[in-house]
Amino acid sequence: MLLNPNMAQTEAPPVMEARRWMEGLEFPADRPLINVSQAAPVDPPPLALREAMAEAVLHQDAAHLYGPVLGNPDLRAELAARFSRAYGGRIAADQVAITSGCNQAFAATLATLAAPGDEVILPTPWYFNHKMWLDMGGIRAVPLPPGPGLIPQVEAAEAKITERTRAIALVTPNNPGGVEYPAETLDAFADLARRKGIALIIDETYRDFDSRTGAPHGLLADDTWAETVIQLYSFSKAYRLTGHRVGAVIASAARLAEIEKFLDTVAICPAQLGQIGALWGLRNLDQWLAGEREEILDRRAAIEEYFAPLAAQGWRILGCGAYFAYVEHPFAMASDALAQAMVRDIGVLCLPGTMFMPASDPSGATQLRIAFANSDRAGIKALAERLANLSYQRR
Amino acid sequence: MLLNPNMAQTEAPPVMEARRWMEGLEFPADRPLINVSQAAPVDPPPLALREAMAEAVLHQDAAHLYGPVLGNPDLRAELAARFSRAYGGRIAADQVAITSGCNQAFAATLATLAAPGDEVILPTPWYFNHKMWLDMGGIRAVPLPPGPGLIPQVEAAEAKITERTRAIALVTPNNPGGVEYPAETLDAFADLARRKGIALIIDETYRDFDSRTGAPHGLLADDTWAETVIQLYSFSKAYRLTGHRVGAVIASAARLAEIEKFLDTVAICPAQLGQIGALWGLRNLDQWLAGEREEILDRRAAIEEYFAPLAAQGWRILGCGAYFAYVEHPFAMASDALAQAMVRDIGVLCLPGTMFMPASDPSGATQLRIAFANSDRAGIKALAERLANLSYQRR
Repeated sequence: MLLNPNMAQTEAPPVMEARRWMEGLEFPADRPLINVSQAAPVDPPPLALREAMAEAVLHQDAAHLYGPVLGNPDLRAELAARFSRAYGGRIAADQVAITSGCNQAFAATLATLAAPGDEVILPTPWYFNHKMWLDMGGIRAVPLPPGPGLIPQVEAAEAKITERTRAIALVTPNNPGGVEYPAETLDAFADLARRKGIALIIDETYRDFDSRTGAPHGLLADDTWAETVIQLYSFSKAYRLTGHRVGAVIASAARLAEIEKFLDTVAICPAQLGQIGALWGLRNLDQWLAGEREEILDRRAAIEEYFAPLAAQGWRILGCGAYFAYVEHPFAMASDALAQAMVRDIGVLCLPGTMFMPASDPSGATQLRIAFANSDRAGIKALAERLANLSYQRR
Repeated sequence: MLLNPNMAQTEAPPVMEARRWMEGLEFPADRPLINVSQAAPVDPPPLALREAMAEAVLHQDAAHLYGPVLGNPDLRAELAARFSRAYGGRIAADQVAITSGCNQAFAATLATLAAPGDEVILPTPWYFNHKMWLDMGGIRAVPLPPGPGLIPQVEAAEAKITERTRAIALVTPNNPGGVEYPAETLDAFADLARRKGIALIIDETYRDFDSRTGAPHGLLADDTWAETVIQLYSFSKAYRLTGHRVGAVIASAARLAEIEKFLDTVAICPAQLGQIGALWGLRNLDQWLAGEREEILDRRAAIEEYFAPLAAQGWRILGCGAYFAYVEHPFAMASDALAQAMVRDIGVLCLPGTMFMPASDPSGATQLRIAFANSDRAGIKALAERLANLSYQRR
């Protein structure tokens, strides 16, 4: 088959791959599958939001028609105001673009920054869709192994910068690592990016579930932010709109004019109903979202509580936050084989560290991502009990 | 600003550019703007479809959640059955992928076919988003000037094929040309593509408004179609779902596995509600769509009727069909300047041929695209009358 070699070298989507591990397996009613492979809401948005969307479907003609490529002006303005307040900075409506999800925000941003042969620095463990996008575009993903607590180190990043480096992309709270990057880390990375004339991309898909209060960083409070910083956001998790595809990119208006070319060609416009839902959420769901955050923070606490006894068996939590725990397993088995064995043997589906790491880095084989956001306390307790029963050979 | 040079060289979205021509202008109530710049439904979908979608918003949890990357199985199966019947061929559900609109179907397809430095043959006048996608990926768009009646010539195409050619992309009924390519033309192009080991992409976004009855080509009736042919489709026009972003690509299952990588990374999944609407449309709106087609065909007849007197002034219809008339104007003025003057002087907004043509081809300067689908008979009559009153210097 005629095939772009860059595409041939790009890995298949991990979540779809993991689903295939379940094929042919049955999970008994008294021990149902615990699926911690993907973190996404499994319940629909609150009724009031669904009613607002249904009303738009029935009575707002514009809900069915093309809108502006960069998103609806009301949503752009509302998000600009929201981010300005939250980060103590000045973000104008024309510095916000709405995208069909946050993956598209990353793809569009990269399309404006890097050509084939260029390089982008990604801390490991990395978010696989970022890596995939770079691979299929012929852009080199430069892995940056983290320091203690899965925090990327700015000195190590500086050593990786070459003539071809165009950007550093950080995800905080991190997917898959769960860790919330300290404000000082982001400050240091922004300084480095500014000094080197490259872009700093900050993907805050999970910002609404950060355990800290107040602004997670001070970068947008600097009036020159738009020269260096590009901020990505997703409405999917906050308002349970994953199926409507709505995210955002916050960048200079000049960069958004370039992003407009990409979005026009790959999407024409974001789906209207997702935008209508996101705007309604921003205007009406702050209190509801605060409750959602409390629930996620409680699940995070449950992970820490129920995993504590596993430490004696050699399990170690490397990072925990937002929707994810990133853990080290104690077995003499590579994590991709382990993850498949776990589906079969204990009915637990999670993703192996190898999916978040270059093949050259052996640490991925000792790690697993546990996307706990969909599991309540009882589910997390059951998960830990099943892990405790694993009897594979240890390292 | 740090900018990918491929992106810098990509033109800005023409429809957005044309909208800027209206800035600062006012259109009197007795001579409102006639906007024939973009062809898209301006009315919402029929009430019964809106009710089905509202019902899903309120009561179908899955309408709000992630779905499979390649689209929902029910919609893939329904479209496969529909195309199998319509083209007298065998198209399996796993040879259909749903995309966030037909532009995305093209982008995803190209991502699997061509790497930077490769070439793709596009007949001129071309669809600008196809050209833009190639430009931003560093893929060379090779223009193929048409033969009589705006029909691309297979011998001319063969002469353009090099070692780097990966595909020929045809749009039929054509945007911007309006022309419906004869089945024999498509046959000949498929033979050429098969012989040369390249792909033949057929974008049938406007197939539901083809004036011919029966299958517009016989390519899918050949059981080996999937080795060469990639067919693109859009639900946007048929069911007035432009704001929901739903299109499709029909290709070999092996190619769709590669397309899945792209779609996962750039969209995760198509918006659920668009898919729900499209499926409902396929199952319930055949008769309604037949009426829509009749209306469009009547508007096409109106173009031919009201433009006939303009021939005496030097206007010429080069192609007419689906949503578009592609015409030659009689003025000693390049079409991009003319189009801007027309907004100001007669309140008509259309796109100049220069937007559909390489700068090296002078014919674009003599041509205009008139997207008539949104104008009723009265509107088309008024349009022709305004054109008749133009008093610019002639060639």
